[in-house]
Amino acid sequence: MGENNRRKILVAVDESNESTYALSWCLKNLVSVQNSNDTLILLFAKTPVAVHTAMDSSGYMFTSNIIASMEKYGKEVAEHVMHKAKQVCKDLNDHVTVEIVVEHGDPRDVICEVAERLKVDILVMGSHGYGAIKRAFLGSVSNHCAQKVKCPVLIVKKPKSNAADH
Amino acid sequence: MGENNRRKILVAVDESNESTYALSWCLKNLVSVQNSNDTLILLFAKTPVAVHTAMDSSGYMFTSNIIASMEKYGKEVAEHVMHKAKQVCKDLNDHVTVEIVVEHGDPRDVICEVAERLKVDILVMGSHGYGAIKRAFLGSVSNHCAQKVKCPVLIVKKPKSNAADH
Repeated sequence: MGENNRRKILVAVDESNESTYALSWCLKNLVSVQNSNDTLILLFAKTPVAVHTAMDSSGYMFTSNIIASMEKYGKEVAEHVMHKAKQVCKDLNDHVTVEIVVEHGDPRDVICEVAERLKVDILVMGSHGYGAIKRAFLGSVSNHCAQKVKCPVLIVKKPKSNAADH
Repeated sequence: MGENNRRKILVAVDESNESTYALSWCLKNLVSVQNSNDTLILLFAKTPVAVHTAMDSSGYMFTSNIIASMEKYGKEVAEHVMHKAKQVCKDLNDHVTVEIVVEHGDPRDVICEVAERLKVDILVMGSHGYGAIKRAFLGSVSNHCAQKVKCPVLIVKKPKSNAADH
């Protein structure tokens, strides 16, 4: 590793296996094992609970109970994703400093905003995160971020051949 | 650096300062100085000489002399780009193995083809290479490659603040 040995590496994590693969690849290939002054920042974007006012016309409203359930579910997903991500870090590089960031919002905006705000040295992400359904609505998160953020962007695709690995 | 210490790193180089910056970033951040078993493959795509048959209607034809001059110019550009890129490698990491690949064709196709053929571990490229005019015709080379190649892709943007650096 060269002169930049106090780097901030932002890794966007989500529920997908591809995101876990991207994190593993980053730990194996980008983070120095010998002399790691790198800080790995794990970022999870919680898509906000959507209260669709369009549904009012049918007389249907989300009750506060339903909203609370959805928020609880979102919180549980975030905790699960972060627990899994931290375990991957521990397994592959026990010395690297790991920080956790969970923010509400569209992943595309959240990732770009956090990358700029924290002045990270590199953004690492899977290419097909955030699930097929969300992606259909949001477009490719990685494409969007690769074009918008100013720092280097590493897009890691999970090989199809070893789908069982993380 | 983790277990993958015999890696093939493909770096797409061209005439742009951004491509030189991407190569430098890669050498400083991705290639291990201490124990480099990495092979850095520098790839330059020479856009083929276009003989526009549409021009025949005006009675104008490229003479063999003009074609020879254009090919000579293309060869000189390739040599200049590779000389500069090898110098950057020598300055930043004298131990890394460097290989040179020059191929004819649309950079988008050439980069994707070489990445697959050589089974590289990562593709590194600037985000705005190949000049503004060519880009207007070709579209973003990095966008295209990031979507098409199967290996991880690192897109490095040159910061505007230190435009004088390489």
